[in-house]
Amino acid sequence: MTHTLVLLRHGESQWNRENRFTGWVDVPLSERGVEEARAAGRLLRAEGLAFDRAFTSLLRRAIETLHLTLSELDELWIPVEKSWRLNERMYGALQGLDKAETAARHGEAQVKLWRRSYDVPPPPLPADAPGHPSHDRRYASLRADEVPASESLRDTVARMVPYWESHLAPALRRGETVLVAAHGNSLRALVKHLESIDDDAIVELNIPTGIPRLYRLDSSLRPVERRYLGDEHAARAAAEAVARQGAAR
Amino acid sequence: MTHTLVLLRHGESQWNRENRFTGWVDVPLSERGVEEARAAGRLLRAEGLAFDRAFTSLLRRAIETLHLTLSELDELWIPVEKSWRLNERMYGALQGLDKAETAARHGEAQVKLWRRSYDVPPPPLPADAPGHPSHDRRYASLRADEVPASESLRDTVARMVPYWESHLAPALRRGETVLVAAHGNSLRALVKHLESIDDDAIVELNIPTGIPRLYRLDSSLRPVERRYLGDEHAARAAAEAVARQGAAR
Repeated sequence: MTHTLVLLRHGESQWNRENRFTGWVDVPLSERGVEEARAAGRLLRAEGLAFDRAFTSLLRRAIETLHLTLSELDELWIPVEKSWRLNERMYGALQGLDKAETAARHGEAQVKLWRRSYDVPPPPLPADAPGHPSHDRRYASLRADEVPASESLRDTVARMVPYWESHLAPALRRGETVLVAAHGNSLRALVKHLESIDDDAIVELNIPTGIPRLYRLDSSLRPVERRYLGDEHAARAAAEAVARQGAAR
Repeated sequence: MTHTLVLLRHGESQWNRENRFTGWVDVPLSERGVEEARAAGRLLRAEGLAFDRAFTSLLRRAIETLHLTLSELDELWIPVEKSWRLNERMYGALQGLDKAETAARHGEAQVKLWRRSYDVPPPPLPADAPGHPSHDRRYASLRADEVPASESLRDTVARMVPYWESHLAPALRRGETVLVAAHGNSLRALVKHLESIDDDAIVELNIPTGIPRLYRLDSSLRPVERRYLGDEHAARAAAEAVARQGAAR
């Protein structure tokens, strides 16, 4: 028996569109992002998948994407669990900054290091900054040492993997077909864990917005099949566009 | 310490608009229903309420209403639990029929009896009818004797009250501020239970669409305050319009 898992990165947000670092800032989908989410639902419907449970983050762009996708699938009724552990990587003091401007100021190499190195976190967001998650009611249940001021991808993996073990893997082992709607970096963390990708190789992996990634997993939850739904070329082009965002204009 | 509970009947659905019996048929909101749900969110925001948890049914019109309301409140991130026990009353063989035509055929008195008597269920939906809930994956986890072919309001109370005891009341006792987005009859069942309304009086109670009903409850979860948010006259007029739907045109 194989288990079925689908990962879906949220559609384009307002700040993806404006090429700004977003992180835990709760920006909405752009109009294009709304369309991407609906298209993802149609791709999943065409695949004939029937989901039993979905997981998402505490951020609006992922929750909205999931809602629109499930609406297309006529599966709004399935249980949805939300966790900060599926949030985007917390981008620290870079949150809100323009990616190209940041590259022009600090150099493309530094920005690529912040965006794509495995263990270099961006500069921390000061605890008294209005956007610090310690001031946000949705994170009130976290222990103080769980609330990040900035995260490397290693940090994101470290807080995502316990959720895989406690929530995602148990649902799959119960035989449930699972949909995860989340973010570029929380999904990279999950893909790294699932596919045992090493710390250097994960730097080059990019996940396109709005294109469902289907996994069939064996009884040990190791992938035996993995692919993007729909047009593979479109998925590759979209992933390459993500990779180029760090370039100075 | 008082507990805070808000009940919200979904906005107008396509079939409310067409004056048809809906029950467990999964019809979407009308455009007006979408606007009502957003307006409900604005009323709740103006009241300064901050929700910790929400509950809804397995039907799209309630789930969409909740999503739109929480989106206005910027509280899409709160946990949402869904249960068939909050579904609309199951309307049996009347599901899909026009209310005024049904009144012309069977008489207004019979339709009022089906719509508003406490313990007269409509004629049952045959088990082999395509719309019978036993053919719907979302009800697969119910025991066979839990899947209704038709329900009186008494039946709706009987399956709603255990959910109040198991989910809603415990959340309130934990100190959570709770929002319930559901249906005309599952909310009448809940109001009957909360306010200890007797079987005869509940017949005359109507709940308007899209207007939040706020309760403050004491430590025994007895209401010490209850009111519709916004304009009380608008709420009363909307409830009276619901009452008139059973009249032959």
